[in-house]
Amino acid sequence: MALIVQKYGGTSVGSPERIQAVAERIEHFHQAGDQVVVVVSAMSGETNRLIALAGEISKHPSRREMDVLVSTGEQVTIALLSLALQERGLKARSYTGWQIPLVTDSAHTKARIERIDDDKVRADLDAGCVVVVAGFQGIDENNNITTLGRGGSDTTAVALAAALKADECQIYTDVDGVYTTDPRVVDKARRLDVITFEEMLEMASQGSKVLQIRAVEFAGKYNVPLRVLSSFKEGNGTLITVDDEVDMEKPVISGIAFTRDEGKLTLRGVPDTPGIAYKILGPVGDANIEVDMIVQNLGADGTTDFTFTVPRNDMERAKEILDAMQSELKAREVITNDKIAKIALVGVGMRSHAGVASKMFGCLAREGINIEMIATSEIKISVVVSEKYLELAVRALHSEFELDKA
Amino acid sequence: MALIVQKYGGTSVGSPERIQAVAERIEHFHQAGDQVVVVVSAMSGETNRLIALAGEISKHPSRREMDVLVSTGEQVTIALLSLALQERGLKARSYTGWQIPLVTDSAHTKARIERIDDDKVRADLDAGCVVVVAGFQGIDENNNITTLGRGGSDTTAVALAAALKADECQIYTDVDGVYTTDPRVVDKARRLDVITFEEMLEMASQGSKVLQIRAVEFAGKYNVPLRVLSSFKEGNGTLITVDDEVDMEKPVISGIAFTRDEGKLTLRGVPDTPGIAYKILGPVGDANIEVDMIVQNLGADGTTDFTFTVPRNDMERAKEILDAMQSELKAREVITNDKIAKIALVGVGMRSHAGVASKMFGCLAREGINIEMIATSEIKISVVVSEKYLELAVRALHSEFELDKA
Repeated sequence: MALIVQKYGGTSVGSPERIQAVAERIEHFHQAGDQVVVVVSAMSGETNRLIALAGEISKHPSRREMDVLVSTGEQVTIALLSLALQERGLKARSYTGWQIPLVTDSAHTKARIERIDDDKVRADLDAGCVVVVAGFQGIDENNNITTLGRGGSDTTAVALAAALKADECQIYTDVDGVYTTDPRVVDKARRLDVITFEEMLEMASQGSKVLQIRAVEFAGKYNVPLRVLSSFKEGNGTLITVDDEVDMEKPVISGIAFTRDEGKLTLRGVPDTPGIAYKILGPVGDANIEVDMIVQNLGADGTTDFTFTVPRNDMERAKEILDAMQSELKAREVITNDKIAKIALVGVGMRSHAGVASKMFGCLAREGINIEMIATSEIKISVVVSEKYLELAVRALHSEFELDKA
Repeated sequence: MALIVQKYGGTSVGSPERIQAVAERIEHFHQAGDQVVVVVSAMSGETNRLIALAGEISKHPSRREMDVLVSTGEQVTIALLSLALQERGLKARSYTGWQIPLVTDSAHTKARIERIDDDKVRADLDAGCVVVVAGFQGIDENNNITTLGRGGSDTTAVALAAALKADECQIYTDVDGVYTTDPRVVDKARRLDVITFEEMLEMASQGSKVLQIRAVEFAGKYNVPLRVLSSFKEGNGTLITVDDEVDMEKPVISGIAFTRDEGKLTLRGVPDTPGIAYKILGPVGDANIEVDMIVQNLGADGTTDFTFTVPRNDMERAKEILDAMQSELKAREVITNDKIAKIALVGVGMRSHAGVASKMFGCLAREGINIEMIATSEIKISVVVSEKYLELAVRALHSEFELDKA
């Protein structure tokens, strides 16, 4: 008998029929003797409908009231799913965030979980109940309704699994697992049976949108085995787990992530003085623009070229900030480029295998692809290339590192 | 400076535009220096939408989960109205039933209010806030969401007004007050400026649907001045208050209520023995059929004709029960009639004025209308007549008791 926390997203519970299909799946687990806690999102479209209603009334709605509003979406789903389970003869009981309670800080619309009281859930499970919990929502110390921000239902599921010391946290979604890379770009992309938390985090932060980063972080921190599966298709999905449980025969590289969502800014000919990076990036950060990759090259004349990437939408705004500082920084010029793509090789195997970087650069060179930026971390190598080479580069690397093979 | 509790029904908050109109009205009171607590229903159509969703999943949904489901309707409205008030520059704060908390018993879908903690509401009012409360919902001792049943938002408003010792509880609706009778039947029907709780209760129980009976009972019990007004039209509406505050010059009769919703059953020739009424009505009550008027006439031969009315929908079911008992009761026959109407004269003035009944009967006789049943209480006389005479009877009585005149 296992204790399983399952999470179903908005598409999985998007209609009464789909809610009934979810109930059928839960029944299978229950009949197999598992204890099941289910975390659900709002029915697809519902959160947007509520936000649109608020938009008709207020352009800058208060965050407290937005949380009161949108948290109703999940509340509707928990009631409907509980009814569907009861209709199948199962005992089921719904809980809103405040009923658990799942206590968060007071940062409305993006609250962080502080603690979970699992007494009632555990008592219900021991009494043979399926427990149905509203994802995405909590309560602060002053009895205000809070929400965890978009995708927060994944975090709710992982946090509950951690609190309950569940055997597994299963995230049901519209893809059937984590792939070596995006199957829409590389048709030989394979579903991974297993991936480590670190790899998953790097994949997610590099543009692979299967899971919310916060949920993976949480799962890694509390060592909750996390599994991504399809709501619509049978299969084992991908298990996300700790490093030492991963097969030692695992290939060096687990996957290739990529994104088109960044733009690049270069300050040419900046005097190479201490504190120059802070002088440049301080004002960018103050403007709430997130900086991703940063590269600084020392030139022969004592000046440096300083390059960094930001979300593509923020590139023009970042350029305005740099332009205003150009004379103060004594920079020769400010260059931008939004026709770039970032590609990242991810794999814990890199730690024990030298030569991954040179193999990567060699492969790209053979394809005639120029590398504009390089950044490395312990389990990741990222490069920026011209956007037009994205598909070519990803396919070539996918073959080079033998990700096509099972 | 007055403390006012206002309640707006589903039609009054049925769209973002209407919610903004409600916010504008509240702003006027706030600017005039009043402290305002607002109780709102779900947007019109929303409760039915939610119930239909549940209906697609379950034919006999659990009451606990139905309360979780439908209580989201009011939660959406409190958030939107708070946003609309804030958009006007007012301080506003929403409360669900559990946040107040408004504590009820555990009778899901028809819970009764047990107590209200008014500390937070009072603190918000003192801080210059408009407090926006979800009607219709509460929380039981075990942290379950409960609802008060349809129309429960009126009760929430009155209960809050009682707890806060408010100066007035204003119920905004789609009619502009309580009328001497239904204006669709008598075009000379007049809006009453004032009516007593007792009269209002009798009017409501006799078919006048302006207010929920429970809300009026509650207001009467806790002596909360209650006012019915239109959301869409300016005017003072009708004040419902205690007897001794009503003008002594008040006419004998305040209004005429009527209903077509009943059917009549007669057991002919039942032996007149002790306990016969219980023998007949016991099984009817056990079948959850509500009995309204009861008349028993002693015949010359030691038998009696026993007649009573029930909701028209239940008449056939009641007949089956009586048919099954006919031989045991030694009744000659069971007769039913669903072509009846009940008309009631209501007025506290009856207490001190004799002759109301004879004046009523004389008026009906002059119109050639046969009276089939009569029942009287301290402030009400009800008669049952053939349904075809309903309009004629109501108009005649409206003139006879000079209700046409201001």
